[in-house]
Amino acid sequence: MNRKLRMGMIGGGKDAFIGAIHRIAANMDGLVELKAGALSVNPEVAIESGKILFLDPSRTYTDYKTMLEKEAALPAAEKLDFITIVTPNFAHFEPAMMALDKGFNVVVEKPITFTLEEAKLLKAKVEETGLTLLLTHTYTGYPLVKQARQMVKDGVFGKIRKVYVEYPQGWLSKPTEKEGNAGAAWRTDPKRSGKSGCMGDIGTHAANLAEYISGTKIDQLCADLNIVVPGRGLDDDGAVLLRFDNGATGVLMASQVAAGEENALKIRVYGENGGLEWSQMEPNTLLVKWLDKPTQVYRAGNNYGGYQSSYAIQNTRTPGGHPEGYLEAFGNLYRNFALTLQAKISGRTPSAEALDFPSVAEGVRGMAFIDNVVRSGQSEQKWTKFEI
Amino acid sequence: MNRKLRMGMIGGGKDAFIGAIHRIAANMDGLVELKAGALSVNPEVAIESGKILFLDPSRTYTDYKTMLEKEAALPAAEKLDFITIVTPNFAHFEPAMMALDKGFNVVVEKPITFTLEEAKLLKAKVEETGLTLLLTHTYTGYPLVKQARQMVKDGVFGKIRKVYVEYPQGWLSKPTEKEGNAGAAWRTDPKRSGKSGCMGDIGTHAANLAEYISGTKIDQLCADLNIVVPGRGLDDDGAVLLRFDNGATGVLMASQVAAGEENALKIRVYGENGGLEWSQMEPNTLLVKWLDKPTQVYRAGNNYGGYQSSYAIQNTRTPGGHPEGYLEAFGNLYRNFALTLQAKISGRTPSAEALDFPSVAEGVRGMAFIDNVVRSGQSEQKWTKFEI
Amino acid sequence: MNRKLRMGMIGGGKDAFIGAIHRIAANMDGLVELKAGALSVNPEVAIESGKILFLDPSRTYTDYKTMLEKEAALPAAEKLDFITIVTPNFAHFEPAMMALDKGFNVVVEKPITFTLEEAKLLKAKVEETGLTLLLTHTYTGYPLVKQARQMVKDGVFGKIRKVYVEYPQGWLSKPTEKEGNAGAAWRTDPKRSGKSGCMGDIGTHAANLAEYISGTKIDQLCADLNIVVPGRGLDDDGAVLLRFDNGATGVLMASQVAAGEENALKIRVYGENGGLEWSQMEPNTLLVKWLDKPTQVYRAGNNYGGYQSSYAIQNTRTPGGHPEGYLEAFGNLYRNFALTLQAKISGRTPSAEALDFPSVAEGVRGMAFIDNVVRSGQSEQKWTKFEI
Amino acid sequence: MNRKLRMGMIGGGKDAFIGAIHRIAANMDGLVELKAGALSVNPEVAIESGKILFLDPSRTYTDYKTMLEKEAALPAAEKLDFITIVTPNFAHFEPAMMALDKGFNVVVEKPITFTLEEAKLLKAKVEETGLTLLLTHTYTGYPLVKQARQMVKDGVFGKIRKVYVEYPQGWLSKPTEKEGNAGAAWRTDPKRSGKSGCMGDIGTHAANLAEYISGTKIDQLCADLNIVVPGRGLDDDGAVLLRFDNGATGVLMASQVAAGEENALKIRVYGENGGLEWSQMEPNTLLVKWLDKPTQVYRAGNNYGGYQSSYAIQNTRTPGGHPEGYLEAFGNLYRNFALTLQAKISGRTPSAEALDFPSVAEGVRGMAFIDNVVRSGQSEQKWTKFEI
Repeated sequence: MNRKLRMGMIGGGKDAFIGAIHRIAANMDGLVELKAGALSVNPEVAIESGKILFLDPSRTYTDYKTMLEKEAALPAAEKLDFITIVTPNFAHFEPAMMALDKGFNVVVEKPITFTLEEAKLLKAKVEETGLTLLLTHTYTGYPLVKQARQMVKDGVFGKIRKVYVEYPQGWLSKPTEKEGNAGAAWRTDPKRSGKSGCMGDIGTHAANLAEYISGTKIDQLCADLNIVVPGRGLDDDGAVLLRFDNGATGVLMASQVAAGEENALKIRVYGENGGLEWSQMEPNTLLVKWLDKPTQVYRAGNNYGGYQSSYAIQNTRTPGGHPEGYLEAFGNLYRNFALTLQAKISGRTPSAEALDFPSVAEGVRGMAFIDNVVRSGQSEQKWTKFEI
Repeated sequence: MNRKLRMGMIGGGKDAFIGAIHRIAANMDGLVELKAGALSVNPEVAIESGKILFLDPSRTYTDYKTMLEKEAALPAAEKLDFITIVTPNFAHFEPAMMALDKGFNVVVEKPITFTLEEAKLLKAKVEETGLTLLLTHTYTGYPLVKQARQMVKDGVFGKIRKVYVEYPQGWLSKPTEKEGNAGAAWRTDPKRSGKSGCMGDIGTHAANLAEYISGTKIDQLCADLNIVVPGRGLDDDGAVLLRFDNGATGVLMASQVAAGEENALKIRVYGENGGLEWSQMEPNTLLVKWLDKPTQVYRAGNNYGGYQSSYAIQNTRTPGGHPEGYLEAFGNLYRNFALTLQAKISGRTPSAEALDFPSVAEGVRGMAFIDNVVRSGQSEQKWTKFEI
Repeated sequence: MNRKLRMGMIGGGKDAFIGAIHRIAANMDGLVELKAGALSVNPEVAIESGKILFLDPSRTYTDYKTMLEKEAALPAAEKLDFITIVTPNFAHFEPAMMALDKGFNVVVEKPITFTLEEAKLLKAKVEETGLTLLLTHTYTGYPLVKQARQMVKDGVFGKIRKVYVEYPQGWLSKPTEKEGNAGAAWRTDPKRSGKSGCMGDIGTHAANLAEYISGTKIDQLCADLNIVVPGRGLDDDGAVLLRFDNGATGVLMASQVAAGEENALKIRVYGENGGLEWSQMEPNTLLVKWLDKPTQVYRAGNNYGGYQSSYAIQNTRTPGGHPEGYLEAFGNLYRNFALTLQAKISGRTPSAEALDFPSVAEGVRGMAFIDNVVRSGQSEQKWTKFEI
Repeated sequence: MNRKLRMGMIGGGKDAFIGAIHRIAANMDGLVELKAGALSVNPEVAIESGKILFLDPSRTYTDYKTMLEKEAALPAAEKLDFITIVTPNFAHFEPAMMALDKGFNVVVEKPITFTLEEAKLLKAKVEETGLTLLLTHTYTGYPLVKQARQMVKDGVFGKIRKVYVEYPQGWLSKPTEKEGNAGAAWRTDPKRSGKSGCMGDIGTHAANLAEYISGTKIDQLCADLNIVVPGRGLDDDGAVLLRFDNGATGVLMASQVAAGEENALKIRVYGENGGLEWSQMEPNTLLVKWLDKPTQVYRAGNNYGGYQSSYAIQNTRTPGGHPEGYLEAFGNLYRNFALTLQAKISGRTPSAEALDFPSVAEGVRGMAFIDNVVRSGQSEQKWTKFEI
């Protein structure tokens, strides 16, 4: 391809945190350019945001339907390649369906939809259209997460027996949703967030990471969901016992009231011969533990000796000791998505490494996780079968 | 007192790991001297061990009953002050009862007895005789564990909401009990270990630590116990959801098949305003986290500024930066026990700091934890009430 | 401004490491677009690289002089705003001078020039033209480095007494310059690298960081420079005792033969009341140490309680726990440079935070550091006065 | 041997820090018993301290000469085996000489004497008498320090090229010697401490550790010694460039005004193929770094796979994950000394592992280090030859 991919954006106006993150991730590798946007449901904000982002005023829209219709009508040389949807949870499904119907590929912020039913419909739509969808489960974009997955896949630890995944945050320890914190407000509001608060917002990341690395799926679960801060309508904390379909067991802990914690996603996986440990807050280190030899410290970007997988290497931009972080992991999702689109547009088969990004299948499992974990939380039975 | 306390020992012969640890702990502060022993059920080992330990041959016994009877008949100026019992789990109760009946104070290795019923009887005996019993739950002997407990007690974190405690080990990842590992053999044998393997051996430490620091008691639990290595008769892994009597919730994870882990006991406790994190493998650091200010690093022995509690200070021997460890924590149990005995012998009231060591109450709760966790593990109901 | 800034690039063709880094850094925040390039002295590589980067073929040049002349002649609405120079060390000066003469602002990779004399001439040219120059001393772009500087400046530690700065790398432990490693080849070649190898390449970063954070300047030094791998023409290792002009002393250690190290730049600064420690490989943590209270853990992006300076905050893109790294630090240099240019173009005064990027003054000190450290290394006198 | 070794102590009365440490170290393994003492030059303190330590009043002395004479006259079955000297620096030499003359083995706190000349005389006396002397350079007692030494000795890293050793403390940041801190008072007093403050107190530890692990000796040095807190008569800070006799170079940093640091002794050693890093404050971890494979984490007590040397193993009491610390390292010195004495008394040859403790040779080098570093600090020449 002799051009950057053209991106349109729905949501993500000037004060929206996650919209800015998507733009940085998309910009990072020079493969994508933002060409159009319906950046806010508030027309003034939409227009002002377009200016700040140097959008052509003719491609700055005040509602997404107009945008999708007008942009779909442009000639091929100008038409958007994909639409990024960064609206609140309840407003993912309709624009995603319409974008696909209009022939656009789609990037959608997690969770993929508001309900499991919508997720299934969206999956069917993607399969029907043959278009490509990226679901931004950021944490699987880290190179050492990919390294971990490949080592498990290669069987170096033997059969996986145990998965511990945890995601403590502390920022909802006080009822900040009543004190003007917009992010807290929608996350604790069932109408905008969905069936679950903490489990939907971060528990899904933990579950996705656990399945991604361990290569096995949650089969049964036993959840304890809590509303710790009085007055909330959704869980702000929880823990889940897990049984995986390969026979492994595990624990998933997620909390938004672990006062003093930042964003401490961490996973440990153990097999017969050893295990691994990875922490999102120090993402360039992967501890590889062995039953009968010293722990090894794998480091992102450090491949002296050639021990790292192609998946880790191709998702790294800098040599060892030059730390990459959250934005680069996010950028890896966009880069792999972009490389996949480039290949498809050019009539090539994307590489396995490029295709390694979360999509509708992960979206459906994520929505099912929310459904199942809420159902288990309400049950007096210990084990709940994971159903889709 | 103008003399060291006199100790007798039951079990702990020349190749026994935990007996050696007890002796180091008892020796450390020069308050105790070993004077007599029935160190093994094997007479040759008992006699040989006595020699190695420089015991008087006349006070080296080949069975504990003879020892307790003969030693009880000695004049006050020679009589043992206490008996340390470091036999396997099933052989704690009878010598402890007999020692108390003969007027000796007692130190007993954890778990206190083989069954909950025995633990209750032992508790009654201690109360009846007015003697003193130390149960060696080592981990509460660390100065920063005591600091943590005091901070929670002082309310600096507000109401406690969340307790995560974990204890992964890897040394039972293979069936080493079939390959001559004696420690593995008795721990995986229901006849010698009791109702539970992993939960009895290390889960009880985790539960004890959680209750000690959080200042609240487990009220309900939901356990998943696993036999991971085929052929074992007892759990070698498990996880437990917890509800505490103050309304807090928590998770307890214990495993002996987390391949590559050593002895990674770790606890995190969160309240309304902040929380704390302590890891046994780096025990001289306590992370104190806050909702609205930077995390602080409390360090054992470092009291510049006077921020540490008397309990931490009096259980520290060296200044900051001179690391103390497991043996000093163990030594703290013995020292506090010895200071308590000294005070009682001298007719003084022991200080609150000296009295801060685990005893029969913790022993009963530990045995009850095993009973309840096994019962929950077998139940299809989610929650099991913690009963004693 | 209603448009992105337009960048041209000299050097940085398709296989050049540092050129790619500059483009990522420039792209990151959507403030800059690459519009022209003379990307290689090899015409084929220059043209091929232009294609890969989606440059307009009419603005893809095969030599920088043609580029600067043609681009200077373009109308204001198309003219480049600045030129980034990422050629080897010996080829910085001439294009930089020419770019300034043609009215372009300049970004230049470190070291600013090949000799101190050139650096002084370039400084004079910048002052004469009133244009803006960014020297990419990346490490001062990290938010917590800025936080550290401000805390020292605010006097919270009292008078600074001690500075330890170290920069061990291991990648030149073997004579890889003889085995086809291009980066190793030019760095160990006096004709391309300059008077010093290790001290020029990474010692200058360490010296720059030390002066930036401590707020004081090196006044005397005592250097031991070594050629550890036989056959090299330049130092690959060294250590320097330092005296600062405020009376503080320090040590600077730099090595490229510390086998097994990645890029372990680290600094510690101590004053009368406390000190701080920052490591580039875990850049989101700043340890703040105190004489009489517990160490505090400052974390990038975590400003709960409002303890962070405006300089740290404005150089952070993500909330606490979402790690930023080397590319974001690099991006901060570009962003501050871009914000400064935007302000100047729009007739506004740039903010103090925007103006906080390294420029010609740091460039001259860096070249003087190389001169002085080499002179000291050759001297038998202990102390060498730092001269410019 | 069928008895404990009998120890007498000179100095170390009830409030003396280091005396208490020696007693804990000596007690720890049950090989030694304290039988006599001249515990203070203040007779009341001497007698009171004897009581606290349960000494026989007839063996509690008020001056060391009387003690050595009377104890030397006792029959073999009661006679002390060795004398521990824990007086201030200036009062080591005379009691040590007299003890040797009376036929006692000796333990002496570091530094061995007040002057180099005394150290040489003491060395000659030890050689002449054939008695055994332990110099308590504690840090070489750590198991992983021994492991490090053996790995270097075995050549796994190739030729050693680089040694960084540092020892920052902060406790003398203020003039606490004027505020009643007794330890600060004698350490900053030339009459009691000797020629050097910081370098004598902690620099010698760093130098000893560097030579112990690297297996090579300091041959030249270039020192910068500082008095940072005004009014002191001795250095409280310094840094030294080092050249070793195998051609390696290094840096030694020691400071007692690094405000906020505890006791942060740390060493890094690099050879052609890799290196190692050990920190005294987390002594159970040894990082083993490689040029072309991942860093390994060696852990004290963890010998799964059999990778640890006999020297590490025999100086460890607990399994991996049960941290040992400063007191155990100190105890290792006493244990090895005691095992050596036991062997000699029993007519056996001590094992190589038992003989691995610091003695007069290290004492002479330590005193020479002080002399040379002070001489270099006063010189305007860069390099000073290390002379004995």
